Amino acid sequence: MRNHPKVETVKQHACCGGSVRFLRHHSEVLGLPAEFGIFLPKEALEGQTVPVIYALAGLTCNQETFLIKSNAIRFAAEHGIALVAPDTSPRGAGVEGEEASYDLGTGAGFYLNATQKPWSQHYRMAAYIGEELPSVTEKLFPLDAKRRGIIGHSMGGMGALIQGLSHPNRWKTVSALAPICQPSAVDWGRKAFTAYLGEDQSNWRAYDPCLLLEDGHKHSSTILVDQGLQDEFLGALRPDALEHAAKAAGQALQVRRHDAYDHSYWFIQSVIEAHMAHHARGLLG
Amino acid sequence: MRNHPKVETVKQHACCGGSVRFLRHHSEVLGLPAEFGIFLPKEALEGQTVPVIYALAGLTCNQETFLIKSNAIRFAAEHGIALVAPDTSPRGAGVEGEEASYDLGTGAGFYLNATQKPWSQHYRMAAYIGEELPSVTEKLFPLDAKRRGIIGHSMGGMGALIQGLSHPNRWKTVSALAPICQPSAVDWGRKAFTAYLGEDQSNWRAYDPCLLLEDGHKHSSTILVDQGLQDEFLGALRPDALEHAAKAAGQALQVRRHDAYDHSYWFIQSVIEAHMAHHARGLLG
Repeated sequence: MRNHPKVETVKQHACCGGSVRFLRHHSEVLGLPAEFGIFLPKEALEGQTVPVIYALAGLTCNQETFLIKSNAIRFAAEHGIALVAPDTSPRGAGVEGEEASYDLGTGAGFYLNATQKPWSQHYRMAAYIGEELPSVTEKLFPLDAKRRGIIGHSMGGMGALIQGLSHPNRWKTVSALAPICQPSAVDWGRKAFTAYLGEDQSNWRAYDPCLLLEDGHKHSSTILVDQGLQDEFLGALRPDALEHAAKAAGQALQVRRHDAYDHSYWFIQSVIEAHMAHHARGLLG
Repeated sequence: MRNHPKVETVKQHACCGGSVRFLRHHSEVLGLPAEFGIFLPKEALEGQTVPVIYALAGLTCNQETFLIKSNAIRFAAEHGIALVAPDTSPRGAGVEGEEASYDLGTGAGFYLNATQKPWSQHYRMAAYIGEELPSVTEKLFPLDAKRRGIIGHSMGGMGALIQGLSHPNRWKTVSALAPICQPSAVDWGRKAFTAYLGEDQSNWRAYDPCLLLEDGHKHSSTILVDQGLQDEFLGALRPDALEHAAKAAGQALQVRRHDAYDHSYWFIQSVIEAHMAHHARGLLG
């Protein structure tokens, strides 16, 4: 591991020929200690520069959830691609009420930069996952900044779509699993955006995938989305709205629908191989 | 699902073309409600009778842990084999102190039939996993009683070895991940066996894989064991003792050692494909 003063290894496990590590550092952007997970394939351990996929988990999850439950690591190892898994919010910000509900505050950072007090001091996950974390991981490990992908589930799927559309040069490949596609129009998003961004809905547009498309933001690659049709949250996810917005904007998008599948990691385990192959084609091909 | 009065479906998820279900029933053997997980591959959902592998988890785990963290389901689906995952102990037995430590009582049933009060009334996991659970699952689903395999991790690896050696006709294939091989000789086992089975160590022999081999118990197939050499519990697992006992008894055994790997599910994810292939060869070949 290259020297980096502010990062400590919390846990380290050999996995699938590579190494899974959980690292803690002081995040300048969040103004707090932050922990993230990383999978380094064998090639990276041998010093080769490898592509990297950032994996954003959903509400209530943390930096371990996606890595241990998604089955992504075995395919990352096969493709020789690293995975970086951030937490879903700052921890210990000390905002009153941040532990009160599963969909606001701790575990529910919505991958945005809050502008409203008391959230605005620490709840800056957009800048953390999009800027600081890549900078930190690329200093520490042989990761190719020109070959970054981003994937996410549910709230994290929204985060991946937002990052891919608003910063197309930052991410070469984009995919999402049962993402929140139109947060401005559903309870989850309206509650979070009102708290974090305020009542003025013009300030919500930068964090709504459908509105980003409407406002002319695009990604040069085809975005892959998988959605289960037995998803208990389907009405709050709105893949149809994303398809319509993408079509109107000329954004290449493939939404694959799966009859029997729900919102769980059992669904993710069932489609993750195709998502890792999608990223591998874009990052390696 | 075939009719069975005492079983209720707690959760059900489509997964890898099949179905993961968590079922609750009243266990006659445990004298308590018990919950178990099952993965039914597509073939079973279509009514075909399929082989089944029983998966025994380790200390502190439950009926979900192995299914969600091991990556076994994708390979079970590929091979057309069902998985059954019991809990690691009775729950709510009400034995004083059963919640006090991670290695005795709740989450630590050691897959044995306790003979000592106050444990003996409910802590009967050997009869549960070996007799009642197969009977219940084979009534409910098209599972082939003549093609059962058993696998386990740590305490569950010990359980798989005990079942395979002491009931060779019950299980066609046997494998273990970082199993407790010689419980009578290590703190974990001595603590549990003293509480559950009493001071007389002659009563421990039926639950010690090395002593079962010494007493002439054998399995007709080659038993597969994988062990990480960075396993933090290696000194309490004793794969060398199992190898010596197997050699002396003429038991076919393959112990594969892995330099960098520890005791975690990151290790299990790294070797599970080979274990599922081992069972598939024996159950399908």
